[in-house]
Amino acid sequence: MTKFWSKAVHRLHPYVPGEQPQDQLYIKLNTNENPYPPAPSVISALKSVANEKLRLYPDPNCSELKNAISHYYNLSDQSVFVGNGSDEVLAFAFQAFFDSDKKLRFPDISYSFYPAYCSLYGIPFERVPLNNNLEVNPADYTDTGSGVIIPNPNAPTGVALSLNQVQVLLETNKEAVVIIDEAYVDFGAQSAISLIDKYPNLLVTQTFSKSRSLAGLRCGFAIGHPNLIEALERVKNSFNSYPLDSFAIKGAKAAIEDSNYFEETCAKVISTRNKVCKYLEKEGFQVLNSSSNFLFVTHATFPAVSLYEELKAQGVLVRYFDKPRIDNYLRISIGTDKEMNQFLDVITSILKNEVPQKSK
Amino acid sequence: MTKFWSKAVHRLHPYVPGEQPQDQLYIKLNTNENPYPPAPSVISALKSVANEKLRLYPDPNCSELKNAISHYYNLSDQSVFVGNGSDEVLAFAFQAFFDSDKKLRFPDISYSFYPAYCSLYGIPFERVPLNNNLEVNPADYTDTGSGVIIPNPNAPTGVALSLNQVQVLLETNKEAVVIIDEAYVDFGAQSAISLIDKYPNLLVTQTFSKSRSLAGLRCGFAIGHPNLIEALERVKNSFNSYPLDSFAIKGAKAAIEDSNYFEETCAKVISTRNKVCKYLEKEGFQVLNSSSNFLFVTHATFPAVSLYEELKAQGVLVRYFDKPRIDNYLRISIGTDKEMNQFLDVITSILKNEVPQKSK
Repeated sequence: MTKFWSKAVHRLHPYVPGEQPQDQLYIKLNTNENPYPPAPSVISALKSVANEKLRLYPDPNCSELKNAISHYYNLSDQSVFVGNGSDEVLAFAFQAFFDSDKKLRFPDISYSFYPAYCSLYGIPFERVPLNNNLEVNPADYTDTGSGVIIPNPNAPTGVALSLNQVQVLLETNKEAVVIIDEAYVDFGAQSAISLIDKYPNLLVTQTFSKSRSLAGLRCGFAIGHPNLIEALERVKNSFNSYPLDSFAIKGAKAAIEDSNYFEETCAKVISTRNKVCKYLEKEGFQVLNSSSNFLFVTHATFPAVSLYEELKAQGVLVRYFDKPRIDNYLRISIGTDKEMNQFLDVITSILKNEVPQKSK
Repeated sequence: MTKFWSKAVHRLHPYVPGEQPQDQLYIKLNTNENPYPPAPSVISALKSVANEKLRLYPDPNCSELKNAISHYYNLSDQSVFVGNGSDEVLAFAFQAFFDSDKKLRFPDISYSFYPAYCSLYGIPFERVPLNNNLEVNPADYTDTGSGVIIPNPNAPTGVALSLNQVQVLLETNKEAVVIIDEAYVDFGAQSAISLIDKYPNLLVTQTFSKSRSLAGLRCGFAIGHPNLIEALERVKNSFNSYPLDSFAIKGAKAAIEDSNYFEETCAKVISTRNKVCKYLEKEGFQVLNSSSNFLFVTHATFPAVSLYEELKAQGVLVRYFDKPRIDNYLRISIGTDKEMNQFLDVITSILKNEVPQKSK
C-alpha cells in the first residue's frame, strides 16, 4: 500500500514531541512550556480577534507583527521573517539555505527535529559530538562550507555559548549560513541578534512558545540580513500564503509590545531554576549549567529512566531521551515555585524510600 | 548575495495571492471569501480559547477536530488529516505523493499554487488544456502513472465535474494518486468523499476558509485511505509538530458541528450567485456555469482589464488574471445581496457611460 508514497516519505524519520496529555492530572515539566500564562494584554488582544472579520484572510505579509518585532529589536522590517512556530521557520530555513550536496553540521546532542528536516529535504548532515562536559566547541564547526545550526542555549542540555563563541562560528563560516536557534535565549543567554548587521550569513530564530508563554498560539520568527529573509519569504510564498492566522498575528504583536510582563516572567523562571538547581545538587544530582527554562540532570546512583517512570507514576511528567550519551539524564522544565516544590518533594521521597526498579 | 540560497530557492516561482487591502474602502470580491461571518457558535468557542492555557502546546494530533470531521462525514479518524489551511495540506500532499521522475498533470487554467508547489519540491508537471468551453475533460487525464490534481469545482472558472467524471479519473489512474481539491465544493458541486472507500488512490482536500467563513483562522483538511493519511502525517511530523494552534482546533471543530448555520450560509450564497448570473447575462456577459462562490465572466465588447480597473477605481475589487486564454475574463466573488447590488449598479454604469480605456 505504500506504493503511493513518494521517495521523500519513505526516507522520513519524523520528530516525536513530548507527551501532551489532554487531561490535567500531571505536573507537566516535559515540554518546556512557560508556567506563567500569557500577559493579560495578550489575552485581551486575542479575545478581540474573535469577531466577524475572521471570514477574511489575514494579511499575508503579517506587516503589523513584523513591524512590532523590528521596532522591539531596532531593526528594519526587511530583517524579520515570521512563521507558524519556530519549527516552521526552521523548516523553511533548512529548505532555503542547505543543499543535497553538502553536509550540514550540528551537535550530536541537540534539538532532534534537525535530522527530521534533513530527511524531509534530503540534506546530508554530520552530527558533531559535544565535548565531555556536553558543551558545544565552536572549533569543531570551522569552515564547514555547508552550514551550521546550533541552538543557543543548546537543548536538551541548557548550556549556552557566549556571544564571542558565536562570533567564532560566524567568522569561520563566511561562505555558509549559520543558524542560531534561540528558542530559549531569553532565560539567560546572549542573543546574536546584535550581530546581524556584521554577518550576512547569520540567521537567528526565536519563538513565542517559551519566554512569551504562547505555545498554544504557534508563532516564531527569524532575524537576519534582508537577503536571507527574502529567501525565507520565497519558500513561504511557495508553500502557504497565510501561515499565521489572525489570532497569531495580533497575539504575538501584543506579546512583543508588553515587555514589562515578559521581563518579570523570565526573571521569575530564572529565580526558580536557580533554587531548584541548588536543591538537586544537594540531593546528589549533577546539574548542567543552564541558561534556559529547563535543567538537564543526572544522578550519581539513581538511573534516569527509573526516575522518569517513578515521577510519572507519582504525577510528574519530565522528559527522558533514550539516546546515546544522554540516556542517564532527565530534562526538567521549570514550573512555578509551587510546582517545583511538589516536584522536589516527590524526588526526595523517591530517592529516600525507593529501591530503583531497573538498574542500568 | 544570493550565494547563500539553496538550489530550491533559485528555482522558485512563488504564488501571488489576491490583494488584501488592510483598509475597509473596497467592496472586496477578489479572494472568494464568504460574505457572511462565522457562526455565532464559532465566535463563542474562539473567545473561550483566549485564556491562560495558551501557555501550553496544543494537541499535536488535533484529535478532537479530526473526530468532529470524521463524525460529520461518517468516517474513521484514520481517514482524516488536518492542516494550517488547505494550502498547507496540499503542500504536504505534493511532497508525499509526487516525485521528481514523473510528470504530475493538472489543468492549464487552475489554482496557480500548483506550479508553485512543483517548483518547491522539484516535481515536473504537465498543464493539460481545458477544452474550448473552459471545462476539464477527464479523458485527458487517463493513465498518467504519475498523479493528477484537479480542483472541483475548478478555479477560477467555477465549473464542476460530476461524480461520474471524477470516477473516470480514479478508474483510469489506479497506480497514481488523484487529488480532488474541493475548496469550493459546498457551493453546489458533488463531493468525492463518498468514493474514498472504493479508491485507495483518492485524496480529497477541503478548507474552512470559504463555505465555513473562516479564512482568518487557517484550517484545511484531507480525506482519504488511511495509508495516504499516514503519508501526510509523516510529512507533517517532519515539518512542524503543531501546525494548528489552539484557536484553529476549537474554532474549526465548532464550525463543523454547526451544520445548520453552514447550510443556511451556503444556500444564501448560491441564491445570490444565481441572481447575479442572470443579471450579468442580460448585460452582455458570458458567465461560466458556476458551482462555486464566484463567477467567471467575459463581456462581449468591454475588455476585462479595463473593467477590472474601472471597478477598482469605483471601490470594487475583483480578480483579473493576466494569463493566456483567460486575460479577457474577471473572477467575481459572491458577496451579500447588498454588496452585489452595489456591484451591479457600478457595472451597469460603467457599461453605459464609459468608453473603454484600453482596447485589446
